[in-house]
Amino acid sequence: MTQKKSDPSGSSLFELGAYLDQKRRVIDERLHTLLTDHCASSRLFEAMHYSLMGSGKRLRPVLCIAAAEAVGAGETELVMRTACALEMIHTYSLIHDDLPAMDDDDMRRGSPTCHIRFDGATAILAGDALLSLAFEILSEPAESMDDPLQQLAIIAKIAHASGNRGMAGGQMLDVGAQGEETDLASLRRIHELKTGAMIEAAVVGGAIAGGGTHAQVEALSTYARSIGLAFQVTDDILNVEGDPEIMGKSTGTDELRLKATYPALMGLDESKTYAAKQVALALDALSIFGSKAAPLHAIARYILERKR
Amino acid sequence: MTQKKSDPSGSSLFELGAYLDQKRRVIDERLHTLLTDHCASSRLFEAMHYSLMGSGKRLRPVLCIAAAEAVGAGETELVMRTACALEMIHTYSLIHDDLPAMDDDDMRRGSPTCHIRFDGATAILAGDALLSLAFEILSEPAESMDDPLQQLAIIAKIAHASGNRGMAGGQMLDVGAQGEETDLASLRRIHELKTGAMIEAAVVGGAIAGGGTHAQVEALSTYARSIGLAFQVTDDILNVEGDPEIMGKSTGTDELRLKATYPALMGLDESKTYAAKQVALALDALSIFGSKAAPLHAIARYILERKR
Repeated sequence: MTQKKSDPSGSSLFELGAYLDQKRRVIDERLHTLLTDHCASSRLFEAMHYSLMGSGKRLRPVLCIAAAEAVGAGETELVMRTACALEMIHTYSLIHDDLPAMDDDDMRRGSPTCHIRFDGATAILAGDALLSLAFEILSEPAESMDDPLQQLAIIAKIAHASGNRGMAGGQMLDVGAQGEETDLASLRRIHELKTGAMIEAAVVGGAIAGGGTHAQVEALSTYARSIGLAFQVTDDILNVEGDPEIMGKSTGTDELRLKATYPALMGLDESKTYAAKQVALALDALSIFGSKAAPLHAIARYILERKR
Repeated sequence: MTQKKSDPSGSSLFELGAYLDQKRRVIDERLHTLLTDHCASSRLFEAMHYSLMGSGKRLRPVLCIAAAEAVGAGETELVMRTACALEMIHTYSLIHDDLPAMDDDDMRRGSPTCHIRFDGATAILAGDALLSLAFEILSEPAESMDDPLQQLAIIAKIAHASGNRGMAGGQMLDVGAQGEETDLASLRRIHELKTGAMIEAAVVGGAIAGGGTHAQVEALSTYARSIGLAFQVTDDILNVEGDPEIMGKSTGTDELRLKATYPALMGLDESKTYAAKQVALALDALSIFGSKAAPLHAIARYILERKR
């Protein structure tokens, strides 16, 4: 009883692991169906499928569905299409980021990257086609999607977050910052655009798709911006003091590469305080939703406590 | 009088050159404004601007506006945004096609290609950002755009035409067909997807934006598919017998590269008959529009008669 009183969201009683597993299953099924229903060229389909159906965390679609739930909606057609569009765009950005002209990565999550498994031309086109497909599934008429203004608002939000004033712009700033002196304001700006904008679009997109009020959408936007920042800061912290065994990758690499990070610019302790403060802001923004925001609550806490 | 009677569209009295010049001016102004209003990263803006504001023919946006005019509309906000979105997507596809992993072209229309003028990473991101921006300008709220169903139908049409079942899919098939034996059906399929789908989306998008009826949209779709095909066939014919002086580029290159073309697969005379038949089909489809379709009429005839 005491615990329940001090934790109105009920998140301490909430099983995040089971929730994530269940959502990922639903998302993977829908992604597979949407991709299959919308494909023509077999090679391009193979490449899109290969990258999209890999072992992703599905963070953006899970946040989208959890935000829709916070405003009282379930896994409606529009919520699921929004969730899947977000993952398609996330996947396209990874495919293009891995290209030789960009980060030149051969492996991602233990598998060859798209341009290694296929080739450069196929990888470029698979990314391009996933971006188009995201907007196609959001705009085409579908059963039980009957509020065109909702659809347009979601498309506008996601298009803005993925373009020059969002992810692509952030990626460009990040490429330009390599080897340059970067201050805290610039670092934060890069992350806000490169990863923060799409995380915010995921949460806000889910809230709009779920029919949230203006005040609810605003509160969830605050939540999303705070966890986006907290996620990046803890990522940097884990690169300093994480356990390589648990993380499944080397640590200390940022320092070796002289990369601008929060611990490098504000110190390790200050970074931890900063991340905790962001998560507190996120949880505060959830207060108007009560127990319906339990999944979002648990995700924010997980970001702070995660070991990998 | 006799001429007018046998030419109800009035296209023989229509000055195509002046029409194209005027439309290109309006389109270039709007492209510049939309790009400037929607940009953040200066390097990315520069690259997008460099490729978008080059000396393009603006065929797709002109077709879009001409189609809107055929159904009785003027240069409304939605018509102009649709026209500009089409040109942004066309430009993105050229930037990505020119990349080293694709066609590896250093020059386009007498200027260095985007990845030569900037670099590979910037060119990839500039293309990506132009694709996102196209959907952003089509979906965001704007003055006097008050029919969300129209907006959604245009987005769905363009997203479909640019993705796996359209341009990107056609590009993939084209890459795969290089060095392979290609029959006439495959050649036509490649062109229908690679260039035809976006030309059709331009005309149909303009017709929807202009508030065309279902029958008008259908007729314009037929027109667009026919001129798309005629354009490709005449392109192949010009590569055989065009004047390199007038065209500003070498001819005979397709034969040297053993490229599958209409003249190679069906003979030169048969190709000319085929192109003329497609243009006749296109003109026939315009009959319901009367003199309002004079620009579309003139464009179709120009495709057949052009020397470059």
